[in-house]
Amino acid sequence: MVDIATRVYNHKWKIDPIVRSLIDTDFYKLLMCQSVFRNKPDTQVTFSLINRSTHIPLADLIDEGELREQLDHIRSLSLGRGESTWLRGNTFYGKRQMFRPDFMEWFENLRLPPYHLERKGDQYELTFEGSWPEVMLWEVPALAVLMELRSRAVLNRMDRFELQILYARAMTRVWEKIETLREIPGLTIADFGTRRRHSYLWQDWCVQAMREGLGSAFTGTSNCKIAMGREVEAIGTNAHELPMVYAALAEDDAALAQAPYDVLQDWHDEHEGNLRIILPDTYGTKGFLDNAPDWLAGWTGIRVDSGDPATAAQTAIDWWRDRGEDPTEKRVIFSDGLDVGKIKELHAQFAGKAKISFGWGTLLTNDFRGLVPDDALAPFSLVCKAVSANGQPTVKLSDNPNKAMGPADEVARYKRVFGVGDQKAQQVIV
Amino acid sequence: MVDIATRVYNHKWKIDPIVRSLIDTDFYKLLMCQSVFRNKPDTQVTFSLINRSTHIPLADLIDEGELREQLDHIRSLSLGRGESTWLRGNTFYGKRQMFRPDFMEWFENLRLPPYHLERKGDQYELTFEGSWPEVMLWEVPALAVLMELRSRAVLNRMDRFELQILYARAMTRVWEKIETLREIPGLTIADFGTRRRHSYLWQDWCVQAMREGLGSAFTGTSNCKIAMGREVEAIGTNAHELPMVYAALAEDDAALAQAPYDVLQDWHDEHEGNLRIILPDTYGTKGFLDNAPDWLAGWTGIRVDSGDPATAAQTAIDWWRDRGEDPTEKRVIFSDGLDVGKIKELHAQFAGKAKISFGWGTLLTNDFRGLVPDDALAPFSLVCKAVSANGQPTVKLSDNPNKAMGPADEVARYKRVFGVGDQKAQQVIV
Repeated sequence: MVDIATRVYNHKWKIDPIVRSLIDTDFYKLLMCQSVFRNKPDTQVTFSLINRSTHIPLADLIDEGELREQLDHIRSLSLGRGESTWLRGNTFYGKRQMFRPDFMEWFENLRLPPYHLERKGDQYELTFEGSWPEVMLWEVPALAVLMELRSRAVLNRMDRFELQILYARAMTRVWEKIETLREIPGLTIADFGTRRRHSYLWQDWCVQAMREGLGSAFTGTSNCKIAMGREVEAIGTNAHELPMVYAALAEDDAALAQAPYDVLQDWHDEHEGNLRIILPDTYGTKGFLDNAPDWLAGWTGIRVDSGDPATAAQTAIDWWRDRGEDPTEKRVIFSDGLDVGKIKELHAQFAGKAKISFGWGTLLTNDFRGLVPDDALAPFSLVCKAVSANGQPTVKLSDNPNKAMGPADEVARYKRVFGVGDQKAQQVIV
Repeated sequence: MVDIATRVYNHKWKIDPIVRSLIDTDFYKLLMCQSVFRNKPDTQVTFSLINRSTHIPLADLIDEGELREQLDHIRSLSLGRGESTWLRGNTFYGKRQMFRPDFMEWFENLRLPPYHLERKGDQYELTFEGSWPEVMLWEVPALAVLMELRSRAVLNRMDRFELQILYARAMTRVWEKIETLREIPGLTIADFGTRRRHSYLWQDWCVQAMREGLGSAFTGTSNCKIAMGREVEAIGTNAHELPMVYAALAEDDAALAQAPYDVLQDWHDEHEGNLRIILPDTYGTKGFLDNAPDWLAGWTGIRVDSGDPATAAQTAIDWWRDRGEDPTEKRVIFSDGLDVGKIKELHAQFAGKAKISFGWGTLLTNDFRGLVPDDALAPFSLVCKAVSANGQPTVKLSDNPNKAMGPADEVARYKRVFGVGDQKAQQVIV
């Protein structure tokens, strides 16, 4: 029997919203937001969409009206009661009340600030301006909306049967990856794929597949909404956004050199244990570690997010040893451009030398490569970054010049201040 | 919203019936049944299940109670009104009123006769006795029930997620086969997979996939229920059952030698065009054609169902040429143990020499090979055959000694009467 009420109700939706919750975002965004809310609440920032894959003509693929509808829908969202209860009451990394009452009260009353959208050639210029703790929450949903609208533009041309085969193939592919991962003894892996996912439902399915196939080797998802719905751990700590904005706010070169450590000092005061993960590559991993204060060596681990991952991991291991720490007690989290082959290789190389984890992103939640003509569903490299703070441009160097961003003169200044010399260019996979 | 009424209704089913309609059977069964109803209505026959794959312990895998419930359910079925309308009103092979009013009236009042079921070691002895037109309609549903109960026994051990991946893989496999077939210009292919299907729903899906992927190259399905539901052609003509029973009824060797031609004489009187397809291998293709009356060369085509298919096709082509017929105007239908590789090969070999068609069975509707541990869903060779008629045992030789059946002394007599010498053994694929 057809449930007529359900069918009629579905017809009443004006759009099929992509992001339906303010916690359909990465856990680390909320952790960072709380930190910013406490330490830099009045900083004015601009976030901007950057499509590194310029061959993907987003403005030709995605209708501007549909994009606006999706973004407007996100602006209509507020934190749900159950979501608030979950954030307030759940245990994250073994800790209760991770989110402080003053932050939660602010979050419960939050609506996301306005956006600015303009078509420029075959791309969109999409920017968000306002106070840092508010604007920063746009990053992940904005990316998810653009990624999924692009998927939908392709899927709209397919009939029902082609869609069924498409998802059968994609599911088979994910499952075969999981079967490969299953053979790695002692694997620890989480889903980091929110921002560049094929779609919300697909990410949700991938999380279930990982949980089903990997059991306790699957440690959780970065996506709070899915973590809550599927009762898995919410995973993540912090991102480049913090040192980038802190650095932009620095008043002179000395303050600039100190900025990345100021970030971690603020973090140190707030968090402990598994949340004390160093992200060292914003202005070059090597220099960052060489100049780091000793207390940082006491942190739990490091996240490797650019450059050659094996080199970076070895650099960290050597650094810990130099600082009198036991690297086998430390955690190395790989999170850049991973797929099963790379995961297997890195695990084989570093298991036993340190605790190894993987944050698997785009090639978990968006590996539709080769599944439709013209590879029209292949993932691509879209980011949404803080580009200025209190009127000053931000800069990111990372361990890969292909991931660098910022005005050329500022990039040169940062390279000088942080002592970054020649870097080896790496292809940005996704 | 949950449709509560639907869920409660589903809970009320005592079993999940596998066969839910008397036309969930092969079209040729109904054509043959009409012929038998007209020509041999009082013949008493015994049909018996034969599991050629003795390594599959059916009685260990399938609960006897469940098997009885399914068989009892089939005995409760009668022809539905829409089904009757479809049989009476539909066009089959371009002909209206294929089924005569007297046959339809009989069929509308039919319930299938009792069955006899007994466990023998790790196998079931399942037999059906009674008048030929009634008993013969047990063959296809009995096979479908056993095949699907075996599938269910394996699927019952799998959780929801494993099932999803299983079907994703199976769908991907079927679709990749279809993509290969799509590249064969001028292909003509039908589904013949009812009797050894993985399940009813799976066969129904395969038919949709074939229609979707092959367009007009897909000529239809042997399954009447699915043909009706999906609005595709019902396909089929006749089977070994007719010559086997006619032969068993022969009173001496001369009558025996004539029996296969008597079958086709009866058929000739009833049908024309595409329904005049010779199935020559029951007692050896070569001898059958050599001794055939000239009028048989005027028939539309031949079905190749055992032995080396290329040899049999060439034998038929040579025979037509010898009898003054143009083989390029004749149809050769391959239907034995086909998969895409064989289909491609045979098509390449015979396209242009005759009209070529394929009746694709088990490896369309039941290719779950390698998809679960111990290959527990691999198809196997189960048949349900007429084993006696009016107390006389039946014999089948075919062009493959591995497919022969009947008492040894009778097999020897048939080989003598039909002049069958040495035969090359072929592996029975499915």
